[in-house]
Amino acid sequence: MSVRNEQAHEARAADDAAPRFSAEELVQTASDVLHRLGAPRQTADVVAASLVLSNLVGHDSHGIVRLIQYSELVKGGQVRPDGQPTVVSARGAVATVDGGWGFGQPAAQLATQLATESASAHGISAVSISSCNHIGRLGEYVATIAEAGQMGMAFCNSGPIVAPFGGAGRVMGTNPFAWSAPLRDDFVALDFATSKVAEGKIKIAVAEGRTLPPGLIVDSVGRPSVDPADLYGGGALLAFGEHKGSGMSMLIELTAALVSGMGSSCDPEYQGGNGTLIMALDIAAFVDMERYYEQAATFCTEAKRIGGGPEHLDILLPGELEARTLEARRAGGVVVAANIRRQITVLADEFGLDLGRFALR
Amino acid sequence: MSVRNEQAHEARAADDAAPRFSAEELVQTASDVLHRLGAPRQTADVVAASLVLSNLVGHDSHGIVRLIQYSELVKGGQVRPDGQPTVVSARGAVATVDGGWGFGQPAAQLATQLATESASAHGISAVSISSCNHIGRLGEYVATIAEAGQMGMAFCNSGPIVAPFGGAGRVMGTNPFAWSAPLRDDFVALDFATSKVAEGKIKIAVAEGRTLPPGLIVDSVGRPSVDPADLYGGGALLAFGEHKGSGMSMLIELTAALVSGMGSSCDPEYQGGNGTLIMALDIAAFVDMERYYEQAATFCTEAKRIGGGPEHLDILLPGELEARTLEARRAGGVVVAANIRRQITVLADEFGLDLGRFALR
Repeated sequence: MSVRNEQAHEARAADDAAPRFSAEELVQTASDVLHRLGAPRQTADVVAASLVLSNLVGHDSHGIVRLIQYSELVKGGQVRPDGQPTVVSARGAVATVDGGWGFGQPAAQLATQLATESASAHGISAVSISSCNHIGRLGEYVATIAEAGQMGMAFCNSGPIVAPFGGAGRVMGTNPFAWSAPLRDDFVALDFATSKVAEGKIKIAVAEGRTLPPGLIVDSVGRPSVDPADLYGGGALLAFGEHKGSGMSMLIELTAALVSGMGSSCDPEYQGGNGTLIMALDIAAFVDMERYYEQAATFCTEAKRIGGGPEHLDILLPGELEARTLEARRAGGVVVAANIRRQITVLADEFGLDLGRFALR
Repeated sequence: MSVRNEQAHEARAADDAAPRFSAEELVQTASDVLHRLGAPRQTADVVAASLVLSNLVGHDSHGIVRLIQYSELVKGGQVRPDGQPTVVSARGAVATVDGGWGFGQPAAQLATQLATESASAHGISAVSISSCNHIGRLGEYVATIAEAGQMGMAFCNSGPIVAPFGGAGRVMGTNPFAWSAPLRDDFVALDFATSKVAEGKIKIAVAEGRTLPPGLIVDSVGRPSVDPADLYGGGALLAFGEHKGSGMSMLIELTAALVSGMGSSCDPEYQGGNGTLIMALDIAAFVDMERYYEQAATFCTEAKRIGGGPEHLDILLPGELEARTLEARRAGGVVVAANIRRQITVLADEFGLDLGRFALR
């Protein structure tokens, strides 16, 4: 499924007649829930703002729906809501951050800040993050790096669900890869799972009784399958881009997962979580920034002009769809699917927390 | 086409009854040709060894067949055979190498050495390469970094031939991406074009009058095509992995191409050549190397065991096929396709150079 279809699908899923919430309302709602889960208010605000930013840019799968997962992680002891990230070591152009098994977003934001500062000093930098569960949406962090005028790259592993190319069993996580570059008053930011699709898409197909397009999963003996139930009968997701994407996912295990010390997804000692590496590169250490910005603008203009061909097809740069969605949702508000509002309301009810007009029973 | 099929195809193309050449014979042959083209003997030896290594690992497309292209580049003035790479600047963890518009391999080897040394000192490093034409096979350089116990990453742009996702015109090059990680006595190395296939495959299909599998090219107005002639009628190659691979290719333009100062492929001022970035990361700056090597070995073992599933499918790690081919060809020699031997013989004849048993008229 193309990223456009994916987002169109998410947009269709929301009822046009449903109430729309402002970013501020959603951040307040999410922060209140996280605070009741045990997060200090400052942490709750940071995590809430990060989740709502995902809603705003159109990636609802990484938005406030995650409150439900996070409450389970807190209840199960995998996330300590008051855990705070710390810098364990910093040497030369690299540093290591320990997430304290708290929420991943504050750890990733700390690592991103360190990476940007260190790249300014050394030309390039890398910061690893260990001991944290869901790191959030990597696209946010590489965008922050690009907004600082640097090139950003980030990747992490996650629970095993993807088969290696030509294989059958679950070896790698959906292992996202993100990469950004600054423009003069904007940026380009790529952020994708190295699996062909997210597991959530297969779950929805099961729920809706639909078959899958070919190429998304294999069954338990490695045969291509279009039956989503096969994923839950010992099957696995496929990597994007055949052997190329599968290889990238393996390298993410060998670098982000091992350099962070979290262990690879298929290691019997893997305890879950996202072993993460965030890198920043200071373009100004290589070339004049004015020249860079000019050449970057030329690339963006020519990619659209030449790439559009004689039919003037609409060429999107990485992150452009997200930027358009951000503008639209900042202006018009965010629709939250009824089933998500219901689940968050149930969660809030546990704490006797009144969610006001967000509540849906 | 999978990497396995691709290599099987290359292997089939060689006649089993054809003579086999040792690596030493091929290096001598290639070095003699390059020397007659004007390269100092030391440069000729370096470039020849690099080309023949590509033959040895099974990537004949990057092997001594390139002598023909290189002689054209020298004759056309795009490559100065006596051009030498120089370090233009080195600051903190980054450096810039100018290839002097000589052969790309010496420039890339210099950059690789600088990257490894700088990563040892700073934890991570990046070196850009400008002013050089064909940089050679990126897999060689990231393998060198992995052999030094570090993680390597390299990418570069090239002449425009790939359409952006959803588009029609030629905006990006085939922009290869390479990534490696060390094992205790070995390494894992990924190296792929971000186009779905190399242009050479389309050229062969035209010559053989075959149609293409779907998903490789679009015609001049962006329609999917299986007619290889459409590529040469204003069409374009497609990126691998749909919008994800297309986005990677764009980021390669915005980083490697612009950070090296070479300009993006679709820039009217682009003068050809490979704008390259080579990065090295010193794993020991993050974690204990013994622990890393243990966890890396566990990943490789488990990826094969779990990934193989109940049918024990043969799971290949990135670079494993190349390592197997290297062993086989070091032992049994290399077959060079007759048409390539003929073309190189014509080239040698221009200089009155006797290629001995390699010659074919």
